Amino acid sequence: MSDRNPRDRKPPFRRPGGKPFDKGRPAGGHAAGRRPAWRDRDSGADDGPVILYGWHTVTLALQNPGRHIRKLLLTENAARRLAEDNIKAPIAPEIVRPSQIDQLLGPDAVHQGLLAEADPLPSPDIETLAAEGMILVLDQITDPHNVGAIMRSAAAFAVKAIVTTNRHSPEATGVLAKSASGALELVPLVTVQNLARALTTLNERGFMTVGLDSEGGDNLAAIALRQPLALVLGAEGKGLRQLTRETCSHVARLDMPGEIKSLNVSNAAVLALYIGATRLGLMG
Amino acid sequence: MSDRNPRDRKPPFRRPGGKPFDKGRPAGGHAAGRRPAWRDRDSGADDGPVILYGWHTVTLALQNPGRHIRKLLLTENAARRLAEDNIKAPIAPEIVRPSQIDQLLGPDAVHQGLLAEADPLPSPDIETLAAEGMILVLDQITDPHNVGAIMRSAAAFAVKAIVTTNRHSPEATGVLAKSASGALELVPLVTVQNLARALTTLNERGFMTVGLDSEGGDNLAAIALRQPLALVLGAEGKGLRQLTRETCSHVARLDMPGEIKSLNVSNAAVLALYIGATRLGLMG
Repeated sequence: MSDRNPRDRKPPFRRPGGKPFDKGRPAGGHAAGRRPAWRDRDSGADDGPVILYGWHTVTLALQNPGRHIRKLLLTENAARRLAEDNIKAPIAPEIVRPSQIDQLLGPDAVHQGLLAEADPLPSPDIETLAAEGMILVLDQITDPHNVGAIMRSAAAFAVKAIVTTNRHSPEATGVLAKSASGALELVPLVTVQNLARALTTLNERGFMTVGLDSEGGDNLAAIALRQPLALVLGAEGKGLRQLTRETCSHVARLDMPGEIKSLNVSNAAVLALYIGATRLGLMG
Repeated sequence: MSDRNPRDRKPPFRRPGGKPFDKGRPAGGHAAGRRPAWRDRDSGADDGPVILYGWHTVTLALQNPGRHIRKLLLTENAARRLAEDNIKAPIAPEIVRPSQIDQLLGPDAVHQGLLAEADPLPSPDIETLAAEGMILVLDQITDPHNVGAIMRSAAAFAVKAIVTTNRHSPEATGVLAKSASGALELVPLVTVQNLARALTTLNERGFMTVGLDSEGGDNLAAIALRQPLALVLGAEGKGLRQLTRETCSHVARLDMPGEIKSLNVSNAAVLALYIGATRLGLMG
């Protein structure tokens, strides 16, 4: 990033936007002001450390053997709760006052006394995904709250992976990680250069690829769904890009009885997951 | 409000927080910084005008004969789109440049060239609600994005009304109105002083009142649901307050097959609405 000092390669913490924390400049969410609390990968920046805060987000990261924690700040209360729950941190925490975390994240971040800096998790190759169950494919959904909520729902419905584009997707850090409530540690995130090519690969590997679109020809709940199933969601407003839609094996809508015919994208995602899991006999 | 100048009682626009717009001070959403983009009614402030922006939010308000529009700012493009769609404004718009709306709302508000100041809609009395179909009851859900998304889903599932508390609820303006995507004009919002008393009234009027709680004894999808049905949702983290839970006729959980057992509250709401509408034969 242009305003990153190359002599300052390993700052103790970096903001979710990929920059070093800067006292007094909020970074945690709504408070981030004019700067989005995530970095668009178009910037070409390398993958810096990710910022994790909040009880579920941090405790699941601490318990994920595949997650390398670089630094851990805990309040005394949070350290006591971890001990009570018998959750061991892989590194020694720094015990801090809540206000010190407030200062790093900004006043609106609900951190619950836990803040970690960690390495990003590796992105599996799409060829290595097992051809079973359900996966989600996100076509340029940019809002980190929505992507986080979608990841959380994906973990709740035992989704095997989430496929997103490298570009025009928020990074798995900060607000997204908080909204995901630990789901980052549970659902592999597969990032790809070209979504249509990824869908072609999924089609070739036997996935049924169903794009969701309010103009879709069939109602999702009325289609004969089968495993492995990939549900494909587009951004609010823009919807699925044309090439995405054309590469899906099916395009379906979500029928609803009321006057409004479209949902918030994370609401549409959870409904599609419920319908998919129910039809595929995955509800357990 | 303490910092409102009494000599400035009728500003041309007021921020979603209930204060006059102030050039250069963002008001539209994430950009609002340390100030929440809604006013907690605890402040005792009177109901000021509400701020509506965005295509769906404003066009549905313009078409709602029950909504009194005080002021309407449109860009030339937006005015042309309204004319093309044959949507008549009840008052003469001021034609402005997009940057003028940006300045009023802050840079993160996706206003699409439309900004209206309107009177709040009246809150119907809970006694007047028809005892049929589904309603939603929200127990101190404070995040305006979540409440807005819930209202949008409520309109999609033909919910008859949403009941919330006067206090500890965001106002139906600004970010909430934008997230609701026009649903404010479609779903009556009933505000009450005391939620337990409102639930008692609903019970007496024959509603089945089902609180959603991850510790609930039954799975919502496995309960014999009946009309009229009230689905009751608590805030994330806190969940249903004890008295709310005790006053519901049933408490149910949403069973899901994955490792995470709780959803973002708007995701839980849409799932409960789908299950309710399906079981009650309301899917049309």
